[in-house]
Amino acid sequence: MTTCTDTLVATKANSPFPLDRWYLAALSKELTDKPIARTLLNHPIVLYRALDGQVNALQDRCCHRQLPLSMGTIEEGGLRCGYHGLLFDGQGKCLEVPGQQKVPRKAKVEPYLVIEQDDLVWMWFGSEQGSTPDKAPPSYAYHAHPDYVYDGGMFHYEAPYQLIHDNLLDLSHLGYVHLKTIGGDAKTHMNAEMLVETEGETVTVKRYMPNSTPPPTYIAAYPFKGKIDRWQEIEFCPSHLRIWTGGIDANSEQVTAPNRGGFHMRGLHCITPETEETSHYFWTIATNPKTDIENIKQKVVEQTRFTFNEDKVVIEAQHKSMQHFKGQPMIDIHVDTGANHARKIIKSLCETSS
Amino acid sequence: MTTCTDTLVATKANSPFPLDRWYLAALSKELTDKPIARTLLNHPIVLYRALDGQVNALQDRCCHRQLPLSMGTIEEGGLRCGYHGLLFDGQGKCLEVPGQQKVPRKAKVEPYLVIEQDDLVWMWFGSEQGSTPDKAPPSYAYHAHPDYVYDGGMFHYEAPYQLIHDNLLDLSHLGYVHLKTIGGDAKTHMNAEMLVETEGETVTVKRYMPNSTPPPTYIAAYPFKGKIDRWQEIEFCPSHLRIWTGGIDANSEQVTAPNRGGFHMRGLHCITPETEETSHYFWTIATNPKTDIENIKQKVVEQTRFTFNEDKVVIEAQHKSMQHFKGQPMIDIHVDTGANHARKIIKSLCETSS
Amino acid sequence: MTTCTDTLVATKANSPFPLDRWYLAALSKELTDKPIARTLLNHPIVLYRALDGQVNALQDRCCHRQLPLSMGTIEEGGLRCGYHGLLFDGQGKCLEVPGQQKVPRKAKVEPYLVIEQDDLVWMWFGSEQGSTPDKAPPSYAYHAHPDYVYDGGMFHYEAPYQLIHDNLLDLSHLGYVHLKTIGGDAKTHMNAEMLVETEGETVTVKRYMPNSTPPPTYIAAYPFKGKIDRWQEIEFCPSHLRIWTGGIDANSEQVTAPNRGGFHMRGLHCITPETEETSHYFWTIATNPKTDIENIKQKVVEQTRFTFNEDKVVIEAQHKSMQHFKGQPMIDIHVDTGANHARKIIKSLCETSS
Repeated sequence: MTTCTDTLVATKANSPFPLDRWYLAALSKELTDKPIARTLLNHPIVLYRALDGQVNALQDRCCHRQLPLSMGTIEEGGLRCGYHGLLFDGQGKCLEVPGQQKVPRKAKVEPYLVIEQDDLVWMWFGSEQGSTPDKAPPSYAYHAHPDYVYDGGMFHYEAPYQLIHDNLLDLSHLGYVHLKTIGGDAKTHMNAEMLVETEGETVTVKRYMPNSTPPPTYIAAYPFKGKIDRWQEIEFCPSHLRIWTGGIDANSEQVTAPNRGGFHMRGLHCITPETEETSHYFWTIATNPKTDIENIKQKVVEQTRFTFNEDKVVIEAQHKSMQHFKGQPMIDIHVDTGANHARKIIKSLCETSS
Repeated sequence: MTTCTDTLVATKANSPFPLDRWYLAALSKELTDKPIARTLLNHPIVLYRALDGQVNALQDRCCHRQLPLSMGTIEEGGLRCGYHGLLFDGQGKCLEVPGQQKVPRKAKVEPYLVIEQDDLVWMWFGSEQGSTPDKAPPSYAYHAHPDYVYDGGMFHYEAPYQLIHDNLLDLSHLGYVHLKTIGGDAKTHMNAEMLVETEGETVTVKRYMPNSTPPPTYIAAYPFKGKIDRWQEIEFCPSHLRIWTGGIDANSEQVTAPNRGGFHMRGLHCITPETEETSHYFWTIATNPKTDIENIKQKVVEQTRFTFNEDKVVIEAQHKSMQHFKGQPMIDIHVDTGANHARKIIKSLCETSS
Repeated sequence: MTTCTDTLVATKANSPFPLDRWYLAALSKELTDKPIARTLLNHPIVLYRALDGQVNALQDRCCHRQLPLSMGTIEEGGLRCGYHGLLFDGQGKCLEVPGQQKVPRKAKVEPYLVIEQDDLVWMWFGSEQGSTPDKAPPSYAYHAHPDYVYDGGMFHYEAPYQLIHDNLLDLSHLGYVHLKTIGGDAKTHMNAEMLVETEGETVTVKRYMPNSTPPPTYIAAYPFKGKIDRWQEIEFCPSHLRIWTGGIDANSEQVTAPNRGGFHMRGLHCITPETEETSHYFWTIATNPKTDIENIKQKVVEQTRFTFNEDKVVIEAQHKSMQHFKGQPMIDIHVDTGANHARKIIKSLCETSS
């Protein structure tokens, strides 16, 4: 594991986000021949893939006159500022100041520690400057699994990260928000038994809907015979959630079995705060078609994107309303159990950091 | 009269608007099959027409997770939230929480008292919570009068309500702002004698322009022979104004007679504050064509809408300028008399409320 | 020189801009048959050309109800407000209040002192109300020079005026920002010797690039034989800069000679603060084609406009970044010398004013 002695990190005091962990900074496919500007946990950062293929991340400002380095160009040796041409390497060291022989000692910008694995770019946010990651980034099997194909994308949210957690930890909203894709019958969703467990930083929420009508996305992607036994299994971690959903023909096999067949949608949802009030929502969806693979993948990805856009509209409106009605009481209902557990974990982690 | 014991009302202290009165909340025709979100006197409100035809109004937030109820759907029994499906009746009582048997005692949202009459939806804003209206909403005869046809609309203004009062109480601006429709000759307007009277909460401003040239809208709508005797009669009340204008062939009959003939435009102007800085301006215009009725109505309504848009441009620019030049002195001129009377009434009513 | 005893001027204390000087308010060609609204040094001003051809400037608000006078109309006698028709002369005196005989004594708006010369409209900003200009506006020879043709324009900048000074005083950025027009080879620019001199309120920066490759704009405008000797001569004054650039065939004559031949671009750059955070950037470019005059002028003007737009993108991004990273250290490099001299002069002038 690389140490990050020189890496700029969020300060310990008063962090509104859990620190000492990896957050997703980008999907690998986003990093091509241009740098990307992205604010993560309040840090303006430039991400770029160097000519040798390595992904680097720096504070997004030239140390000369503060132009964002994300307006510069990727060149042999590193990233060149688009105003006066200062050249920085992947660790933020200035290699060249055009027009003068000597590079000033203070000419450098702060680097951030990034690791690329599973087609994902993870960034370390420690609670103390110079902290060393004490764990590897989360690993994720379904981007390279032989039975699965996947794709994904990114949404920018005008809403804080925890409202997205709430949404993902309670899939009962499917019956009201997502009728056109994965919703199905509202009553079936709301009345399904819900199993909630917490262990350490993890919350799992499981729900099974036996003998239910398959929703539009399912029918489009898989040759079900009629009614299906359906599952929703959610695993929440503070920086990301894994959501396994799918269905098998009703009564054909054990719906809770880890090796069950049928139609699978395995979603990875990485929610990285941009600021206290805004978020980046990276998602991928992997599915397991046996035939007509590319076509079914595209259908599943497109319907997922459509579905997530429906959530975005609701969550952003909710955020605006909550800002207006700040302080007004909210009541809890049964389906909030998982989300409330996750909020407790985040609260405790933020207090630990501060 | 319905009491509104449970109705949420603006608090007494520091109201920037006169309270204990009815304000217009909507035109009846706006309420069809979708709820409407509208902020009135700083209250975010959802208005909807229930399946039984009754108009209801609630605070625009679900008591569960604050999603605006205006994003929900009108169903049998009431309004259903678009996120987790809580169902509320017209008094804000929660009838159903999907996924659980029991509805929590605190699951309710605040209702507002509305009355629909004359194709208008009026809402009560009392100065104390639970106050009972001590008067009926204003009645208005010209939406159902056998000799008249009418239509109307709504403008959202980036300007406070009193700037719109000022504008409507002094029609001398017609000669500078509305040359294309109802303006006519500027000098005639400015020099016409102006009669201003105040009684209680009401200000009347009357102006007569004998032997003047009919403006474009008048010529388009009525077969005048040449010059006309023209009237403008304005009645201001704190929540709305009635503006009677029109003309008869010059010297054909008494221009001040209540039963005069000729061309009539009877305008209703309901100015409902949205916030201290923004307003809703509901208007209708009724006219009395004898022939070619639908066609003349459309002409009059379209030219009125065009005219009011000219006012909107001026008033919003005025507001922006007043914000910038806050504290700089303004001089009064002769035509301000009516508007200044109205401002005194509003000031006195706000002080009474507080 | 006209005195401006009644002219509204910026107050002495705490001016963020050097006062007691002329700033450019408009290009003559902007003033046709409509008034212009423009905020200069935080003053909202209406500029208009009266029917007699004289340019006048007033505070941009009617003294009656604050409507911007820039929404009014230019008439015989002056400027008429677009709301109630008050008429003001070029010194801000109200000549007429429609609807009444007497013009109130206080009915006036503040005038500003403007002088039009060289197709430019200059406005005086004194540090004390009623101060008399102690100097004429800067004169400029190349708008009427027999060998030159010119045109220009105006950019509105979301950036403070001094960032634009910085940009213009260091043309080393040409090699990174303006590759498509006047950039040429980055190294040649950065490594050229730079001569910086300060005298009073003036900074001059000169740079000569012998035997260099002519950039695209040069080739498009002049029949160079091959390599060229190139000059950049910048003269900074607090309200404007003169930038002389051009080239001659390499080794054909003395590149520093005042009467050198070849291709000339003589730029006038008037940077007038709008507010502390925003600016107006007026520019003209004069050039000296011998043949195909109109065509070459248009090419040079268009490429200049394109080039300045590239600067605008960079400088506005820089400003946004500097606001975010306020307080973070910036390092200086060699090419900053001229810009730093200019900043010292501005700082000293602002302190003198306050």
